[in-house]
Amino acid sequence: MLGNFTYCNPTKLYFGKNALDGLKEELPKYGKNVLFVYGGGSIKRNGIYDKVVALLRACGKNIFEDGGVMPNPTTEKLAEGCERARRAGADLILAVGGGSVCDYAKAVSVSAYCGEDPWEKYFIRFEEPSADAKLIPVGCVLTMVGTGSEMNGGSVITNRAQKMKIGHVFGEAVYPKFSVLDPEFTYSLPRYQMIAGIYDIMSHILEQYFSGTDDNTSDYVMEGLLRSLIHSAEIASEDPLDYEARSNLMWTATWALNTFVAKGKDTDWEVHMLGQAVGAHTDATHGMTLSAVSMAYYRHILPYGTHKFARYATNVWNVPAGETEEETARRGLDAMEAWMRKLGLAMSLGALGVTRDMLEGIAASTLVMDGGYKTLTREEILEILEKSL
Amino acid sequence: MLGNFTYCNPTKLYFGKNALDGLKEELPKYGKNVLFVYGGGSIKRNGIYDKVVALLRACGKNIFEDGGVMPNPTTEKLAEGCERARRAGADLILAVGGGSVCDYAKAVSVSAYCGEDPWEKYFIRFEEPSADAKLIPVGCVLTMVGTGSEMNGGSVITNRAQKMKIGHVFGEAVYPKFSVLDPEFTYSLPRYQMIAGIYDIMSHILEQYFSGTDDNTSDYVMEGLLRSLIHSAEIASEDPLDYEARSNLMWTATWALNTFVAKGKDTDWEVHMLGQAVGAHTDATHGMTLSAVSMAYYRHILPYGTHKFARYATNVWNVPAGETEEETARRGLDAMEAWMRKLGLAMSLGALGVTRDMLEGIAASTLVMDGGYKTLTREEILEILEKSL
Repeated sequence: MLGNFTYCNPTKLYFGKNALDGLKEELPKYGKNVLFVYGGGSIKRNGIYDKVVALLRACGKNIFEDGGVMPNPTTEKLAEGCERARRAGADLILAVGGGSVCDYAKAVSVSAYCGEDPWEKYFIRFEEPSADAKLIPVGCVLTMVGTGSEMNGGSVITNRAQKMKIGHVFGEAVYPKFSVLDPEFTYSLPRYQMIAGIYDIMSHILEQYFSGTDDNTSDYVMEGLLRSLIHSAEIASEDPLDYEARSNLMWTATWALNTFVAKGKDTDWEVHMLGQAVGAHTDATHGMTLSAVSMAYYRHILPYGTHKFARYATNVWNVPAGETEEETARRGLDAMEAWMRKLGLAMSLGALGVTRDMLEGIAASTLVMDGGYKTLTREEILEILEKSL
Repeated sequence: MLGNFTYCNPTKLYFGKNALDGLKEELPKYGKNVLFVYGGGSIKRNGIYDKVVALLRACGKNIFEDGGVMPNPTTEKLAEGCERARRAGADLILAVGGGSVCDYAKAVSVSAYCGEDPWEKYFIRFEEPSADAKLIPVGCVLTMVGTGSEMNGGSVITNRAQKMKIGHVFGEAVYPKFSVLDPEFTYSLPRYQMIAGIYDIMSHILEQYFSGTDDNTSDYVMEGLLRSLIHSAEIASEDPLDYEARSNLMWTATWALNTFVAKGKDTDWEVHMLGQAVGAHTDATHGMTLSAVSMAYYRHILPYGTHKFARYATNVWNVPAGETEEETARRGLDAMEAWMRKLGLAMSLGALGVTRDMLEGIAASTLVMDGGYKTLTREEILEILEKSL
């Protein structure tokens, strides 16, 4: 636990079957006007929309709908949502959907009354909301597992004109006040989205695991989360209606990115920087942009963190030790790659529609971060992207 | 993650060197009158008392001292603390010490204005504070690691006349508002207290681990916490001033008992029921009462949870598999016992001053709980105590 830190996560979670009933406890805490945010409309097909509307009405709320949030929420959509929130006089933003919908809700929360261009303020200059800023409380009902947005201050927004997809991690005041996590709400998710979410979880853990040289408690916890994730992913992949597996995936996703396992760790989140650049140029599914670049990236940085990669091989993948630490480390990545292929993840940028002529542009959109085993040069980014093609 | 649950833990943690500076942020949030609770006076010898007083004064607080909290806080002391809190008109209780001091502070918080006998209300009838009850906010500065009291609603109180030591787990409203966790504050702790705290942590995890038949994410996380604990305990045992080890122990203790790893699990806490009965009759150090009864207890219930004990042997103790699952399971407990003996824990009740003629009385004071692999009979409790003698 090197380094000093604070920890506080005030989000209240309602977990399990019928967790939506938690709304009966939460909704009365807020005023009458609710901005009801959702995505492309799948919640209308699977019945969740009707259940939420019924609960909102039963609690006497005025419902202001803001649907159509896209998988990579844009600055244009954000501006539209802010306008709607102001006109509604929203007392609460209720986000019903996956990570994009939750991220978007948090972005509207901090932007509706910020009085300037939120893209410039939060995503380019990385500023915080001012202490006296009017924030609109956010609550979430999760229908897709992976991003962890249900219990953190993260929000990723895409600027299509600038071909940039950037995340900001806001402080406690922006965390969802509550989140509803019913594993059955994820049953109807298409397989492609399910496994993309699974890899998003894995990537979140690995971004935090592959950093630091100390024997941090967080590293041990992350190994536990990874083993649980691998185990449950295999079961859910065979039987998407296995409640135990889907519930463990949901819980693992939340704890992979609610700041707990980051404590005492440096992180660079470079796989996400690469993946987000791919997303900005292709609009591809987030988890798949991460899987497509991961193997080339990890094999590239392995020499800078050999000991940890060998530990990963042993403690997470149960790989027999090689003659050298480096061989053990490489075997671990081989095991990971085989598992990813079996799951059906996108293993190349080509599978996401990326062509060679796009690589320079993607490299230019990739933010370079410190805090990992190796701060990448522009040449290394291009090399990793080429190997991922 | 079988079962439905809610999760919310609002305690803010300040962790690391100079974490005490967190008081500068927290103290201004409360009124002027602070009940300053501490134990036997070790904080006066190691300088923590002076630092806390200086910060309280700098924040303009009126300090009302309530020292002398004993290792197993009694109902008599609780009554005295309530009287002091009322007379002071305490706006905040600042607990500076180990788990006993934090537990006591929470008990005063819920009892000062409860208007009836708190022992009967909370520890015998297990009632909650009424919704409109006046609770006094609690903040903690931790000087001993183990109980996890710094981030939960737990409070254990001893009734000497009745020879009963009983814990109540209160809800979120009673959690410390903030806790200061500076690993260096634990450096001056005597070795006996340090290793007792280490086993208290292990016992907290095992009480939650040895339950349930599902493949719960919490089980994987607990295996990670146990591995980290074992690793750091060995280092701290050799060099108590190893910051990394002491900080990992501190962080592991907090997460072992802040409700996170309990989610989706049934638990009976029977080792604690046995240990607390021993404590009520001997006033022995809490962690040592747990270590003294653990091996007899776990060997007794092994046949009712063989599969999980075998998993424990493999995933936590790296024991080679035996010919049968039961053999693997027994090897795991043997490895655990060897580790405990090497650490120097109390491995028998005799070492805590218990004599054979006391066993009937201790058995009578032991609460029998459901939720584990085997609900014990009175005969089994006596048998376990005899084997622990």
